[in-house]
Amino acid sequence: MPQDRLAELLSGQMGQVTELIRARMASQHATRIPEVTAHLVEAGGKRLRPMLTLAAANLCGYSGPFHIHLAATVEFIHTATLLHDDVVDESAKRRGRPTANLLWDNKSSVLVGDYLFARSFQLMVETGNLRVLGILSNASATIAEAEVLQLTAAQDLATDEAIYLQVIRGKTAALFSAATEAGAVIAGAPEAQVQALHIYGDALGIAFQMADDLLDYEGSAQSIGKNTGDDFRERKMTLPVIKAVAKADAAERAFWVRVIEKGQQEDGDLAEALKLLHKHGALEAARGDALAHAARARAALAAFPPGEMKACLSDLTEYVVARIS
Amino acid sequence: MPQDRLAELLSGQMGQVTELIRARMASQHATRIPEVTAHLVEAGGKRLRPMLTLAAANLCGYSGPFHIHLAATVEFIHTATLLHDDVVDESAKRRGRPTANLLWDNKSSVLVGDYLFARSFQLMVETGNLRVLGILSNASATIAEAEVLQLTAAQDLATDEAIYLQVIRGKTAALFSAATEAGAVIAGAPEAQVQALHIYGDALGIAFQMADDLLDYEGSAQSIGKNTGDDFRERKMTLPVIKAVAKADAAERAFWVRVIEKGQQEDGDLAEALKLLHKHGALEAARGDALAHAARARAALAAFPPGEMKACLSDLTEYVVARIS
Repeated sequence: MPQDRLAELLSGQMGQVTELIRARMASQHATRIPEVTAHLVEAGGKRLRPMLTLAAANLCGYSGPFHIHLAATVEFIHTATLLHDDVVDESAKRRGRPTANLLWDNKSSVLVGDYLFARSFQLMVETGNLRVLGILSNASATIAEAEVLQLTAAQDLATDEAIYLQVIRGKTAALFSAATEAGAVIAGAPEAQVQALHIYGDALGIAFQMADDLLDYEGSAQSIGKNTGDDFRERKMTLPVIKAVAKADAAERAFWVRVIEKGQQEDGDLAEALKLLHKHGALEAARGDALAHAARARAALAAFPPGEMKACLSDLTEYVVARIS
Repeated sequence: MPQDRLAELLSGQMGQVTELIRARMASQHATRIPEVTAHLVEAGGKRLRPMLTLAAANLCGYSGPFHIHLAATVEFIHTATLLHDDVVDESAKRRGRPTANLLWDNKSSVLVGDYLFARSFQLMVETGNLRVLGILSNASATIAEAEVLQLTAAQDLATDEAIYLQVIRGKTAALFSAATEAGAVIAGAPEAQVQALHIYGDALGIAFQMADDLLDYEGSAQSIGKNTGDDFRERKMTLPVIKAVAKADAAERAFWVRVIEKGQQEDGDLAEALKLLHKHGALEAARGDALAHAARARAALAAFPPGEMKACLSDLTEYVVARIS
């Protein structure tokens, strides 16, 4: 697994990142903060985003120390987003465990998320690198904007592939690309490498999210750590549905209007939706799109000479879509 | 009114701040964002915090342009906090109007709040001043930490004056002191003036919040833009209650345990609480504390030569406690 090889290559540095995360998620005054944060941080997420920052910095020949701060920053932004996402989606499960909003309450998730956002900004300020600060503050705004866009695009059958791309590029790819670009910038890499790592993160993030959205219809609960069909029940307009709606006849359209727009879902509707997705080749087409973005990520690495880190990052583009291949 | 005189003195610059706020609360993609933000921003808040930044910068001889960015930053942080506060407190009214969480939903308030936080970081990064970035990112973390502390301290009769001071210093005074200190730093003021303006903001913010908490028991709904007794119903341990609990006999303590800790409130309990606050001189003592902090703010201005801006800031310390004097 390229993810595990990357983890091994970066194990010493990831240890420093974990240490920094633990130190900064502490709070002298409010014990609720480390409780909630630890629940999520220690749940054993893949830590993909901080590894991307470290890998990018390493690939550009940087040996520290500020890529550690940036990796922790990226993980804090991600964790804060998860806490708020679970409140917004009213989720009950995350990484196979009950969510914080369920174990504590929505209030704690909102406020601890805010604390982690603020902590992430403190961490990035410590690098003293204004260009990095620009990249990461822009990414934060893009993420939040995309989350609002997703909120208003859900349950709206008029949502097309362009809007979908905007949403996932914002909510997922923006942090991937900021993670890799910031790693290159802190390393003082030449402009062509900075741009290449931005494109790599953007394409990898899009492929990752497209695969995730596909698995929500195709995967098993075990393989994805949450329940299949969650997006359908939340009436989200993800890529497979958008493609099937575009090819729907009148009767099928009436079905989508009922289950997505009106939210009148009955037993058997998820199975019917899957039948329509298969009928129109929507899952296969969405898979093709994900693979194309993975290939785009791989191609961006041409800016770098051969080496173990580059090979790992290249393999990672195959790994994120392996679950759907 | 010193607030109005300040607004007049700074009217040109506040116009620029308003323009910048309008430009940055826009979103190309998600129209929900300016809708929610405008509801709050255009509701005619006092804009006290951005005026403090401008006043501090002016007092230190700065003529621009980055105090405008910092003033907008401070207002964005404040607005984001209000959006999240109303979700956490399940409030229905703010500045005399229905809250955003009521008009739209909690999801929109959470995500638009996140957007404004991110926008505030973008704005401060544009100043290119790392010390200012440190001050404002620290303030953001302090605010979020205090909000969590307030959450866990509510409904807990063991909350004492030290914890109360920590909560209000964090949730209110931290942004006041960051607003004034950042104004001084961007102006390149000497260290003694930077410290003086930090102390001024801290003391003013504490006096302001103490007055607010007092008015929640003493004011009229009209004068405070929300309902009297809200803190009592939300079982918040504010200064008057803390002082009364400290002097309670056994029967009174049983009353406080029932209404604050157990939350078993009945008709007439607010009147009974007020009776106990009066009996123990808790309101008068809290008033005295607020006035002392206002005096501390005034004293900090000794670091500056006489002038119209200084006179305005000095009068402002009397204004924030005038409602309770």
